[in-house]
Amino acid sequence: MIIIMRKDASAREIANVTARIEQLGRQVHLSEGNERTIVGVVGDGRPIDREQIERMSGVESTVPILRPFKLASRDFRPRDTLVRLNGFAAGDKAVVICAGPCAIESRSQLLETAHAVKEAGAKVLRGGAYKPRTSPYSFQGLGPEGLKLLAEAREETGLLVVSEAMSPEQVPMVSTYADILQVGARNMQNYALLHAVGEAQRPVLLKRGMMSTMEELLMSAEYILSHGNDRLMLCERGIRTFEQYTRNTLDINAVPMLKQLTHLPVFVDPSHGTGKWSLVGPVARAAVAAGADGLLIEVHPRPEEALSDGAQSLKPERFAQLVTELRAVAEAVGRSV
Amino acid sequence: MIIIMRKDASAREIANVTARIEQLGRQVHLSEGNERTIVGVVGDGRPIDREQIERMSGVESTVPILRPFKLASRDFRPRDTLVRLNGFAAGDKAVVICAGPCAIESRSQLLETAHAVKEAGAKVLRGGAYKPRTSPYSFQGLGPEGLKLLAEAREETGLLVVSEAMSPEQVPMVSTYADILQVGARNMQNYALLHAVGEAQRPVLLKRGMMSTMEELLMSAEYILSHGNDRLMLCERGIRTFEQYTRNTLDINAVPMLKQLTHLPVFVDPSHGTGKWSLVGPVARAAVAAGADGLLIEVHPRPEEALSDGAQSLKPERFAQLVTELRAVAEAVGRSV
Amino acid sequence: MIIIMRKDASAREIANVTARIEQLGRQVHLSEGNERTIVGVVGDGRPIDREQIERMSGVESTVPILRPFKLASRDFRPRDTLVRLNGFAAGDKAVVICAGPCAIESRSQLLETAHAVKEAGAKVLRGGAYKPRTSPYSFQGLGPEGLKLLAEAREETGLLVVSEAMSPEQVPMVSTYADILQVGARNMQNYALLHAVGEAQRPVLLKRGMMSTMEELLMSAEYILSHGNDRLMLCERGIRTFEQYTRNTLDINAVPMLKQLTHLPVFVDPSHGTGKWSLVGPVARAAVAAGADGLLIEVHPRPEEALSDGAQSLKPERFAQLVTELRAVAEAVGRSV
Amino acid sequence: MIIIMRKDASAREIANVTARIEQLGRQVHLSEGNERTIVGVVGDGRPIDREQIERMSGVESTVPILRPFKLASRDFRPRDTLVRLNGFAAGDKAVVICAGPCAIESRSQLLETAHAVKEAGAKVLRGGAYKPRTSPYSFQGLGPEGLKLLAEAREETGLLVVSEAMSPEQVPMVSTYADILQVGARNMQNYALLHAVGEAQRPVLLKRGMMSTMEELLMSAEYILSHGNDRLMLCERGIRTFEQYTRNTLDINAVPMLKQLTHLPVFVDPSHGTGKWSLVGPVARAAVAAGADGLLIEVHPRPEEALSDGAQSLKPERFAQLVTELRAVAEAVGRSV
Repeated sequence: MIIIMRKDASAREIANVTARIEQLGRQVHLSEGNERTIVGVVGDGRPIDREQIERMSGVESTVPILRPFKLASRDFRPRDTLVRLNGFAAGDKAVVICAGPCAIESRSQLLETAHAVKEAGAKVLRGGAYKPRTSPYSFQGLGPEGLKLLAEAREETGLLVVSEAMSPEQVPMVSTYADILQVGARNMQNYALLHAVGEAQRPVLLKRGMMSTMEELLMSAEYILSHGNDRLMLCERGIRTFEQYTRNTLDINAVPMLKQLTHLPVFVDPSHGTGKWSLVGPVARAAVAAGADGLLIEVHPRPEEALSDGAQSLKPERFAQLVTELRAVAEAVGRSV
Repeated sequence: MIIIMRKDASAREIANVTARIEQLGRQVHLSEGNERTIVGVVGDGRPIDREQIERMSGVESTVPILRPFKLASRDFRPRDTLVRLNGFAAGDKAVVICAGPCAIESRSQLLETAHAVKEAGAKVLRGGAYKPRTSPYSFQGLGPEGLKLLAEAREETGLLVVSEAMSPEQVPMVSTYADILQVGARNMQNYALLHAVGEAQRPVLLKRGMMSTMEELLMSAEYILSHGNDRLMLCERGIRTFEQYTRNTLDINAVPMLKQLTHLPVFVDPSHGTGKWSLVGPVARAAVAAGADGLLIEVHPRPEEALSDGAQSLKPERFAQLVTELRAVAEAVGRSV
Repeated sequence: MIIIMRKDASAREIANVTARIEQLGRQVHLSEGNERTIVGVVGDGRPIDREQIERMSGVESTVPILRPFKLASRDFRPRDTLVRLNGFAAGDKAVVICAGPCAIESRSQLLETAHAVKEAGAKVLRGGAYKPRTSPYSFQGLGPEGLKLLAEAREETGLLVVSEAMSPEQVPMVSTYADILQVGARNMQNYALLHAVGEAQRPVLLKRGMMSTMEELLMSAEYILSHGNDRLMLCERGIRTFEQYTRNTLDINAVPMLKQLTHLPVFVDPSHGTGKWSLVGPVARAAVAAGADGLLIEVHPRPEEALSDGAQSLKPERFAQLVTELRAVAEAVGRSV
Repeated sequence: MIIIMRKDASAREIANVTARIEQLGRQVHLSEGNERTIVGVVGDGRPIDREQIERMSGVESTVPILRPFKLASRDFRPRDTLVRLNGFAAGDKAVVICAGPCAIESRSQLLETAHAVKEAGAKVLRGGAYKPRTSPYSFQGLGPEGLKLLAEAREETGLLVVSEAMSPEQVPMVSTYADILQVGARNMQNYALLHAVGEAQRPVLLKRGMMSTMEELLMSAEYILSHGNDRLMLCERGIRTFEQYTRNTLDINAVPMLKQLTHLPVFVDPSHGTGKWSLVGPVARAAVAAGADGLLIEVHPRPEEALSDGAQSLKPERFAQLVTELRAVAEAVGRSV
């Protein structure tokens, strides 16, 4: 950390800051410029709370030198983490395609979709049994019944399944039936939930909050990693901006930026990231071209009857065609599907 | 709901949409313009899912006519709701001032602050025992120990106390010691938590998420109201924007806008809304002038030693001076402090 | 400036950076931490381009120490600037109220409004002769004809007048008829225009862009000041956010923040800042309570017939009532109207 | 347009609205629901100002049915517009690559870059002679001298050149030397400039403002088209969001969304869209995969010495490698480079 003193800071104020830093077990490196004094903080230890220092008399501002995440950083683990799944791994050469309905609605809907996406080339079936909905009057998901249908679809197709847990109490139940636990965008900073999945014996897919920075995503990853679970995948799913023609703004920059900052696999959800089925194909191709390790795509046999997010779901035949397109793009950038 | 058909929609597509609406128990009102056909939906019942209709062939877009919240709306209850507390009520003529430290750190810190804010004119003591922190390495709060200190401070001063619950399991514990349950900004869409506080026997203070629209805030209020708890207060605490000189951008428009949309009391938190103690005073005065029913202000005896949010905390003497200023502004707009 | 080297930066890379800084006429202050080396830049002179340094091999990032604006800063001129107008000054104890129609539409509309706002207590008449409109099909203003009407209204009422110039060529014409030149939000970074008003012999009201940070506003002020015109007032008029219930989000934090950063008077436009006439009153009161030096309020005798921004215009009788309310709030904070 | 009346609107208020609409030469289509009355507006003519109607007594809100742009819309011209350049066209199968320095700094810098990008496969040389800079103390460009160097580079290499005009007066000068006129992001709503380039005899590249919606971009395009110039290309260059790790957030959704809304070619600028040279490659590949018709890439022989935007510029050898990668991606999606 670097501490920038006010132009009019007194010698006594500078001495107080110095003393506080040394009291915290660090050394100080003073730099007296023409305009103001800069106090450098040197030495290891627990991070110092910048807010405390900023409230000291004579301090103008502080500047962090190190990023606030550690276990999630490339500095800590320079090589890509491979999250091993069922004979394949996220973070490997092959782009992992997860597909399925937003919400599980019925046995026939789920099985029909599962067979279709399996045939088209997906490796993982997605489907929500617990649904976070803005309105208390919207469909809230089938709950445990839906999880059992997921398990049945896995049996029938051999696909892995990923499903969301919305609270710590749901983690054991979802872990019983699903292969991968999803933490949704609205829960990215639900710390009790991060704690719970950090101790679960399942890989985790952590979605970026719609108004969270990449740094905050990596801090939430840090919660999970520091609780002992390093089978972790991140997912960019669009952020909230002023633009109104699309539901969210998919942050394509986040794909290469996160790959530089962290060793964890980075997925992309073009369905939530656009909110419009007609944009899902082009944006999915873009994600693969930018280096995404996986995709999360909503597929529904009859989107116009979907109980959730029908406007952004692909029909199975359109999804199959998209997988073909993705294969070509993946090969163009040295990957496979 | 109004359904706007595409310019090139066929008669068959229009008929399909009409049939679907009638199948959902509503009547249809067709309006054939020069450019395109508009389908009006008439009649009562459960809201129709717009996404389903938007996926139907020939449909360009849909427009909602009614706001999606009901119990929270002024249409439902035209007069201001008074949330009765201890001999006073939120939503009444007097502006309710809640003050105290961000986090409870020790017995002496809490009691010293409690006495000071009581003397200055606060009616409610705020203090966090469970702290949602971006980093797993930051101070996470004293937990139950902190709640007991809160109860002790209430005994000594006669102040009511408000404290945050971060997950459904914490609700009974926080209810045991606190008079008002706070739902924090990061948990505004934690639906399991909204469900739990909706069934609790305590008034609730619901903070707007930093990434949430007013409509979403009112939908989260709707969750709590529809679970049976109507002793509910809302709180604007700043939203995330591109501006970097302040921690958040306090949305002052939200005060009069929410007062028009809902009958619930509206509080303002100028400490989180600005992130800088030197801005808290002017923005608190602005909130009262704009019609806020209450304020949430962070006060700490030694902000430069605070374990959380020291940069935005007032010292007790500055807080006392602020209350005097607020009293003058409140009287200028026909209120009191 | 402080330069943070990469963890793995070589001695040669550090030497190259040092040499570059010295070549630019500054001294270097090296601080070698456990984790990485920090290079402090000491000495006066033209600002160094951070981007150039950031591209050098081994550099991780740079941190500015000084704010990039000078003439606009409180450091440069600690006392409030008073912009003297006609027997009164912006930045003084009295809050300056500017009112009038968004666009000048006709002689009768303008004169009727001018008399009404004069009587209610306004000191300055606002009215646009050149209108920046999103659509080429919207009313674009009366041009020179409108300016002449403004001059006539000034003759009749004794009010000063403020009007917008949209391009450098319009500056002489607007200067002929108006007392104060307005630079609109969309033109805050129109540098040719800033240059022109910086050389004009008229006070300038510079509105913050809807997409601009406070720092960028102050940099645009710096353009005007550095071209020689220091009769400059700033105006917060709402920024663009994700919120949809209001047209813009008025940044109330900006009032005290700007007052700390700069010596220039700070105005607020609650009409554009909210976009809804029913919010103008509460937000105008908030602005005065937060310390604004002036207000810009849209008034129209028949808002439902206005050719521009009718939805946010007050009727004259409502405006008169508002001025009474503002007087009470101003007195509560030691100001007057 | 659809007009939604308030729940408590009186028969007289509804009659007034009806009368106003008919007075404007349209027919009215009333739909009386259980909850409220909806007034549909039918018939052709100049757009009705929604704000005027919204101010009428008894009106709750209005909803536009048609998009506010016409000449720019796919409805108006269903087939892709090809902007013919020099033996090739923007909007055609081949993706058009424009490359060069942000600012023209010297003859040697420009010529060295021009030869390098020509050899690598670029068709157009970019380079700024007039530079919009946030700070009055930054390098403002070489002006006419820079334009002459551009013309010389065109002579030597056969590349077309694109350069920015910042004000109407600069349009003739830039038109003399450049093949394509660029309107920069900060000037997207500089209507005097849009007017001027709308009457110029040169193709125009219009960049989206950093905080402008797609609809506003298309309205600015409408200004140019309605002044007679239909040789127009749009360019997505990143929008401003809360994310801080990148300079802007490139809106990849905008590529397919704009292609659906308009017949005009859509370019992407990954240099400004990311602000970091290490992200330019992945994001450029993404843009091509999403369907972009062209790219604008900053190349500088010695980025660490660049007078502007060095942090986001590629070295020539990296650019050459990128073109090879882009060729592979383009072929994967049925295009070429």
